Amino acid sequence: MGSNMIYMPIVLALLGLVYMLIKKSWVMKQDAGDGKMKEISDHIYEGALAFLNAEYKLLAIFVVIVSILLFIVSLIVDTTHWLIVIAFIFGAIFSAFAGNIGMKIATKTNVRTTQAARTSLPNALKISFGGGTVMGLGVAGLAVLGLTAFFIIFYNVFMGGEWTSTDKMTVVLETLAGFSLGAESIALFARVGGGIYTKAADVGADLVGKVEAGIPEDDPRNPATIADNVGDNVGDVAGMGADLFGSYVATVLAAMVLGNYVIKDMGGAITDVFGGIGPILLPMSIAGVGIIISVIGTMLVKIKSNDAKEAQVMGALNIGNWTSIILVAASCFVLCKWMLPETMKMEFFGEGLIEISSMRVFYATLVGLAVGALISSVTEYYTGLGKSPILKIVQQSSTGAGTNIIAGLATGMISTFPSVLLFAGAIWASYAFAGFYGVALAASAMMATTAMQLAIDAFGPISDNAGGIAEMSEQEPIVRERTDILDSVGNTTAATGKGFAIASAALTSLALFAAYVTFTGIDGINIFKAPVLAMLFVGGMVPVVFSALAMNAVGKAAMEMVQEVRRQFKEIPGIMEGTGKPEYDKCVAISTKASLKEMMLPGLLTIGFPLVIAFVPMIFGMDTKAIAEMLGGYMAGVTVSGVLWAIFQNNAGGAWDNAKKSFEAGVEINGEMTYKGSDAHKAAVTGDTVGDPFKDTSGPSMNILIKLTCLIGLVIAPILGGNHSETIVAANNTSKVIEYTDDSSKNKVEVSMNVENDLAIATVTTQTLENGKIKRKTQELRGSESEVKAEIEAIKILIK
Amino acid sequence: MGSNMIYMPIVLALLGLVYMLIKKSWVMKQDAGDGKMKEISDHIYEGALAFLNAEYKLLAIFVVIVSILLFIVSLIVDTTHWLIVIAFIFGAIFSAFAGNIGMKIATKTNVRTTQAARTSLPNALKISFGGGTVMGLGVAGLAVLGLTAFFIIFYNVFMGGEWTSTDKMTVVLETLAGFSLGAESIALFARVGGGIYTKAADVGADLVGKVEAGIPEDDPRNPATIADNVGDNVGDVAGMGADLFGSYVATVLAAMVLGNYVIKDMGGAITDVFGGIGPILLPMSIAGVGIIISVIGTMLVKIKSNDAKEAQVMGALNIGNWTSIILVAASCFVLCKWMLPETMKMEFFGEGLIEISSMRVFYATLVGLAVGALISSVTEYYTGLGKSPILKIVQQSSTGAGTNIIAGLATGMISTFPSVLLFAGAIWASYAFAGFYGVALAASAMMATTAMQLAIDAFGPISDNAGGIAEMSEQEPIVRERTDILDSVGNTTAATGKGFAIASAALTSLALFAAYVTFTGIDGINIFKAPVLAMLFVGGMVPVVFSALAMNAVGKAAMEMVQEVRRQFKEIPGIMEGTGKPEYDKCVAISTKASLKEMMLPGLLTIGFPLVIAFVPMIFGMDTKAIAEMLGGYMAGVTVSGVLWAIFQNNAGGAWDNAKKSFEAGVEINGEMTYKGSDAHKAAVTGDTVGDPFKDTSGPSMNILIKLTCLIGLVIAPILGGNHSETIVAANNTSKVIEYTDDSSKNKVEVSMNVENDLAIATVTTQTLENGKIKRKTQELRGSESEVKAEIEAIKILIK
Repeated sequence: MGSNMIYMPIVLALLGLVYMLIKKSWVMKQDAGDGKMKEISDHIYEGALAFLNAEYKLLAIFVVIVSILLFIVSLIVDTTHWLIVIAFIFGAIFSAFAGNIGMKIATKTNVRTTQAARTSLPNALKISFGGGTVMGLGVAGLAVLGLTAFFIIFYNVFMGGEWTSTDKMTVVLETLAGFSLGAESIALFARVGGGIYTKAADVGADLVGKVEAGIPEDDPRNPATIADNVGDNVGDVAGMGADLFGSYVATVLAAMVLGNYVIKDMGGAITDVFGGIGPILLPMSIAGVGIIISVIGTMLVKIKSNDAKEAQVMGALNIGNWTSIILVAASCFVLCKWMLPETMKMEFFGEGLIEISSMRVFYATLVGLAVGALISSVTEYYTGLGKSPILKIVQQSSTGAGTNIIAGLATGMISTFPSVLLFAGAIWASYAFAGFYGVALAASAMMATTAMQLAIDAFGPISDNAGGIAEMSEQEPIVRERTDILDSVGNTTAATGKGFAIASAALTSLALFAAYVTFTGIDGINIFKAPVLAMLFVGGMVPVVFSALAMNAVGKAAMEMVQEVRRQFKEIPGIMEGTGKPEYDKCVAISTKASLKEMMLPGLLTIGFPLVIAFVPMIFGMDTKAIAEMLGGYMAGVTVSGVLWAIFQNNAGGAWDNAKKSFEAGVEINGEMTYKGSDAHKAAVTGDTVGDPFKDTSGPSMNILIKLTCLIGLVIAPILGGNHSETIVAANNTSKVIEYTDDSSKNKVEVSMNVENDLAIATVTTQTLENGKIKRKTQELRGSESEVKAEIEAIKILIK
Repeated sequence: MGSNMIYMPIVLALLGLVYMLIKKSWVMKQDAGDGKMKEISDHIYEGALAFLNAEYKLLAIFVVIVSILLFIVSLIVDTTHWLIVIAFIFGAIFSAFAGNIGMKIATKTNVRTTQAARTSLPNALKISFGGGTVMGLGVAGLAVLGLTAFFIIFYNVFMGGEWTSTDKMTVVLETLAGFSLGAESIALFARVGGGIYTKAADVGADLVGKVEAGIPEDDPRNPATIADNVGDNVGDVAGMGADLFGSYVATVLAAMVLGNYVIKDMGGAITDVFGGIGPILLPMSIAGVGIIISVIGTMLVKIKSNDAKEAQVMGALNIGNWTSIILVAASCFVLCKWMLPETMKMEFFGEGLIEISSMRVFYATLVGLAVGALISSVTEYYTGLGKSPILKIVQQSSTGAGTNIIAGLATGMISTFPSVLLFAGAIWASYAFAGFYGVALAASAMMATTAMQLAIDAFGPISDNAGGIAEMSEQEPIVRERTDILDSVGNTTAATGKGFAIASAALTSLALFAAYVTFTGIDGINIFKAPVLAMLFVGGMVPVVFSALAMNAVGKAAMEMVQEVRRQFKEIPGIMEGTGKPEYDKCVAISTKASLKEMMLPGLLTIGFPLVIAFVPMIFGMDTKAIAEMLGGYMAGVTVSGVLWAIFQNNAGGAWDNAKKSFEAGVEINGEMTYKGSDAHKAAVTGDTVGDPFKDTSGPSMNILIKLTCLIGLVIAPILGGNHSETIVAANNTSKVIEYTDDSSKNKVEVSMNVENDLAIATVTTQTLENGKIKRKTQELRGSESEVKAEIEAIKILIK
C-alpha cells in the first residue's frame, strides 16, 4: 500500500467530511423551536450571511489583485510557476467555504440548542457540540483535502508523480505555498475584520443599551442586539475557524518543505515504499489521521444528568480532548516508525550533518503535543474563575477602575513568563531532537487535533447565542440557566482555545521561518549585521502598532453603532415599549461595513511591510542575499513581539472578563461579600471594556500577523534566493551526483560530486575574472565526503 | 599637546565640577524663606536623606556581594584582572555620590524657588534651573572624571602608558567595564527603587487624601504628603541622574572598546600624535568637551519678564538646548578631523575590511545628535498638551474610563511607530557611515549634552516641589501660579527627557552589544540556530515581566501607605483640624522600605537571567561559543522588546497625564466645554492612575534593564570567548606581524603575517590530529593582503 500512501490523507479527509455531513443533517433535523425564537434566529442567520456576502465581495477584489501580482511574479521569476495563482485562488475559496459552513451551522444550531435546553441539558450540549463538530470537521477536512489534492496535482505536473530531485520538489512546494497564502489571506479578513465586527457590535450595544437606556443585555428592544449576536459568530466561529485553517495548512506545508531538505541532506534521494518521499508525506498523513481521531474524540463528549454543572460539562470535553491527544501521540509513533527511514541525516546549522533516528522525530511530535496541552493549562491558570490571578484583580477592583486596570495589565504581562519559557523550551527541544524538521512536526502533531479543538471552541459562541435567543424570546429562567452553564464552560474553552491558536501560530511561524531560510539559501540570519538588527527592531514594532490600529478600529466602529442606536431610540416610536420594531439590519450593516473598512490599514501594514523591505532595497541594487537576511530579521522580530503581545492581550482580556464575572456569584473583598452593582463591580466592568478588544480583536489578530508575514516571506523567497542553485542530477542511497552553481559573486564555481561507498570524487570547475579575462579551471578532488566538501568550500572562498 | 590629550577630559570634567561648586554656593546663598516654608522644606530634605541612607545600606551589601563574585571571576579567568573589583566599587561610589549631590541640591533649591517666586518669575526660574544645573554638572563631571581617571590608571598598570597591542588594551577596557557595571548597579537601585518609591507615595497619598478624606493635593494634614514630595526627588532627580550617569559611562566605554578594534582592523597599530590611541580617546574627548558646552548652554537659559508664560520659559530652555547641540556638532567635526586617522580600515561583518574616512565618523555623530533631538519631538507630539493624540484621549474620556484607557494604550502603542523607525534608521545610517564604531559614537555625541539634558530635566521636579511648598505653607495664589508655570514646562521636559533617556539607553545597549560580540570573538549572532532563537524569545519576554513586577510593586507599596495614612487619620486626634501633627516620618519610612524591598525581584530577574543563560549550559559542558551566541540572542531580545515597552509605557503614561491636565483649562467635548469634576474628567483621572506607574516606574526602568543586561554580557564576555586568542606581535602603519591561535576545534592553525607596502608574507603552521597522532605543518604564503587572507581562511576550513 506504501506508494498509494499519497492518497491516504485525501481519503481520511473525505471520510471526515462525510461524517460532517451526517452530523450536519442530524443537527438540522432537530427542533428549531417556535415563532419568536425562530424569528430571532433567522435575524442572526441573515445578519451573518450579510457579513459573509459583504466580506466575499471585498475578498473577490483582493484575490483578483493578489492573483495578478502573483502572476506577474511568476513571469519574472524562473522558480515561481503560474500555477501558484490557481493554488492561491483555491486556498482562498476553500478557506472561505469552510468559514461559510461554520457560520451557517452555528447560526442554525443556536436556536436548536435553546429549544433543547427547554427540556434537557444533555441534549443541549449534544446539539451545540454537534454544531461545533460540523464546524471543526469542515475546516480540518477541507484543509487536508485541498492541500493534499494540490500537492498530488503539482507532484504530477512538475515531477511526473515520481521523485527526481530536491530542486524539482522545491518548485512543487513553492507553488503549493500559494494555497497556504490564499487560506491565510482569508484568515486576515475573517479574524481581523471579524474581531472588529464582534467588538464594535458588542461595545456599541452595551454603551447605549445597558449604560444609557438601562435595558439588559440581549434585550430585543436594542437595535444592536442582533449585530451583537451575529458578531459572536463572525468573530469566534468564522474568525477562529479561518485562523486555524490557515495554521493547519501552513504548518503541514512548512513541514513538507523541511522534509524535502531532509531528503536533500541524505544525499538527494532515499529509497522507501512511499516513492522516496516519506518525510514529505508524513506531515500530511498525521493531519489525515488526526481528522479521524478527532471524530472519535467528539463522539466521547456527552453528559448524562440533567442537573450537571460546569464541572461535568468541562469533564466531558476534557475526556474527548485528552483521548484525541493520546491517540495522536500513538499514531505519531506508528507513522514516524513506518514512514521515515530508520536513521536520517540532517544538516544542523554550524554543526554539520548529524544522524537522526526516526524515533527522535517522534519525540519532537510529543513536544508539540505537550506544548499544546500545557499552554492551555497556563492560559486557564491566568484567566480561570477562582484562580489566584483573578482573585487579585477582584481585590484590586475595590480601590477603583485604575487599580483594576493595572492588576489586569500586570496579569497579562506576567502570563508571558511561563508561556514564553514553554515556547522557548519547545523550540529548543524539538530542534535538538530533529532540527527544524522536528520543530515543524511538533507543530503538525499539535495541529492534528484541530477539528476537535475547533469543535470545543465553536460550541461556546453557539451556547452564548442560544442564551441570547432564550433571553430575547423570553423563555423560562431554567432555559437561560442551562445555556448559561454551557456558555460559562464556553468562556473557559474560548480562553484556552486562544492559547492553542497562538501556540499553533507561533510554531507555524517558526516552521515557515525555517523553510524561508532554507529556501533562500542564505547562511542564516545574523543580527550582528546592523541592517538585520534594524529590521529586527522594525519587526518588533509592527505587532504593537497593528494592535493599536485594531483597538482604535473597534472604538471608531462602536461609535458609529452608538450614533445609529441613539437615532433609532429617538426616531422609532414605541421602540422602548416594545411596540415599535427596531431596524436590526441597519446595525448589522454598520458593523459589517465598518469592520471591513477598518481592517484595511492593519491589513496593508501586514502585507506592505515585508514587500517594502524586500523590493525597495532591490531597486537600489542591494544584494538579494543581504535583503533576504534583512527580511528574515524582520520576520523574527514580528514573530517574537507578536507572540508576546498576543499572550499579553489575550490573557489580560480573559482575566478582566472573568474578574467581572466573579461578581455575579459574589466575591469577598476585605471581609465583605460584594455583588453585581457595587462600586467594585463597576470598576471590574471598566476593566472588561478594555479587555474586550484585547482578547477578541487585537490579541487574536497577532496570530494572523505573524503567520502571514512569514508566509509572504516564503512566497517571495525564490526572488531573494534566485542566484543560488544546486541541482542533484542523479542519486541513490550510496551514490550521488550533485551539480551546483553559485554566481552570487562575479566568480563562479561549478561542482559535480559523486559519492560511492566511502569515496567521494568531485569535479570542480572554477571561473574567475582576472584582469578583465575569464579564466576557467577544472580539477578533480578525491577523498572522504567531508574532506572533499571542505576542499570545495576552501576553493569557493579562494576565488571569491 | 597631542599625547597629553589623555588628560584633557579630566581637566574639562574638573572645570565642570568647579563651575558646579560655584553655582551650588550661589543657590545656597539665596533666601530660603520663612519659618513654615523652611520647616516643610526641611521635612522633605530629611525624608530624602532617610531614603538615601536606607538605600546606601542596601547598596553596601550589594556592592560587597558583587565585589566578591567579581573577585572570584578574576581568579578563574585569565583575561579578567582583580582591579575590576576596585573599578566596580568606585563606579558605584561615584554614581551614588552624584545622586547625593543631586538630591541635596534639589531639596535645598525647592524652597528657595518658592521664596523667589513670591517676587519674581525670572528669579524663580534662575534658581530652579540653577539647582538643575548643579545636578547635571555633578553627574556629567563625576562620570567623565571617574572613567578617564581609571582609564589612565589601567593604561599605565597594564600597558605602561604606551600602546602595545589590541589584546592588552582589551584587558584595560575589560577592567574599566567594572566602573560602568558599578554605575549601572546604582542606577538599578535608584531608578527602579526610586520609581516604586515615588509612585507608592503619590498613589497612596492621593487614594486616602484626595479620594477618601477629600483634602487637596499637597495638603499638610495628609501624613503622606512629605513622602510624596520626597518621591519627586527620589524618582525624577536621583533616578534620572543615576540612569543617565550609567548611560554616559557605558556609551563612552563601548565606543572605546570599538575604537580598540578599529586599531586592530588597521593592522594592530596606528601612528598619531595621541600615542596611537586616537580612536579610543575620541569618545572621552567628546564627553569632556560636552561638559563645557553644557555649561555654556545652561548660561543661556533665562527669561526677563515677570509676566512670562510657559512658551517663554520653554523658549529659554530650547535656546540653551539647541545651542549646546549645535556646539557639540561643531566640536565633533573638529575632534574627528583632528583625532582620527584620515582614513581607517574597519571590518564590516560579511563584507570584509572597508576604508572609512574620519569624516564618515563625524557623519555618524550627526546621526546621533539628530536622533536625540527628533525622539524628543516625537515624544512631545504624542504626549504634548493640545496635540491631536491628547485631544483624542480627551474625547474618548466622555464615554467613560474604559474608552479613555483604550485610547491611552493605543496612543502609547502607536507612538512606537515613528520612534522605532527612527532608531532603526539611526542604527542603519550610523553603521553604514562607520560600522559599530559609528553607532557607538552616535550615542556618544548624543550623550555629550547630558549635563544640559539633566539640568532641563531636574528643574521640573524642583519646581513641582516648590509648588508643593507654596501650597503647604499657604502662600499667596500668585506664588503657586508662578511655580505652576515652571512645573507645567517641567512636565513637558520630563516627557521629552524620558525620550532622550530611552534613546540613549537603546544606542548604548547596541554599542555594548557590538562590543560584546567583538569581545567574545564569535561569528555574529545567528538566530537561525534554534537555541539562539529560543533565547531571543526569552529575552523579549523579560521586559514585559519586569514591567509587570514593577507595576505590582507600586500597588503593594501604595496599599501599605494607604493603611498607614488611614491609621493616622483615625488615631491622631485633631489631625483633620490641623491641630494634631501628622507623623510624616512614618510614611517616609514605609515608602523607603517598601520600594527597596519590592525592587529585589525585578533586580534579581535582570541580573539572574544572563548569568543563568551563561553558566547553566556551561555546567552541562556546552561549547562556550555556542553559549556566547545564545546570550547574544538574549541580549538582542531584551533590547528590542525593552525599547518597545519603554516607549509604549512612557508615552501612554505621559498622554494620560496631559489628557487629565487638559480638563484644568477646560476642553470641548461634543461641542460642550467640560471642566474638572465632570464625569469625563473622572474618567481621565482613572487613566492617569494607570499611567502613573507606566511613566514613572516600569517605563523608565526599561532603560536600566537593557543597559545592565548588555553590560553583564560584556563583563562575562571574556569567560565565554576564552578559547579565542589573537596576538599582534608588532606593527606599524605599513607593516604588521600577527599571531593567533584558534583552538575551538581540535586542530589548530597558527598564523604570523607581515604586510609591507603591498606584499603580504604569512607563515602558517597547522596542527592536525590524524589517526591519533599530532601533525604540524608550516608553510609560507605570499601575495596581496586579501589573497593571503583568503588562503588562510581556506586552510582553516580545510583542517577543521
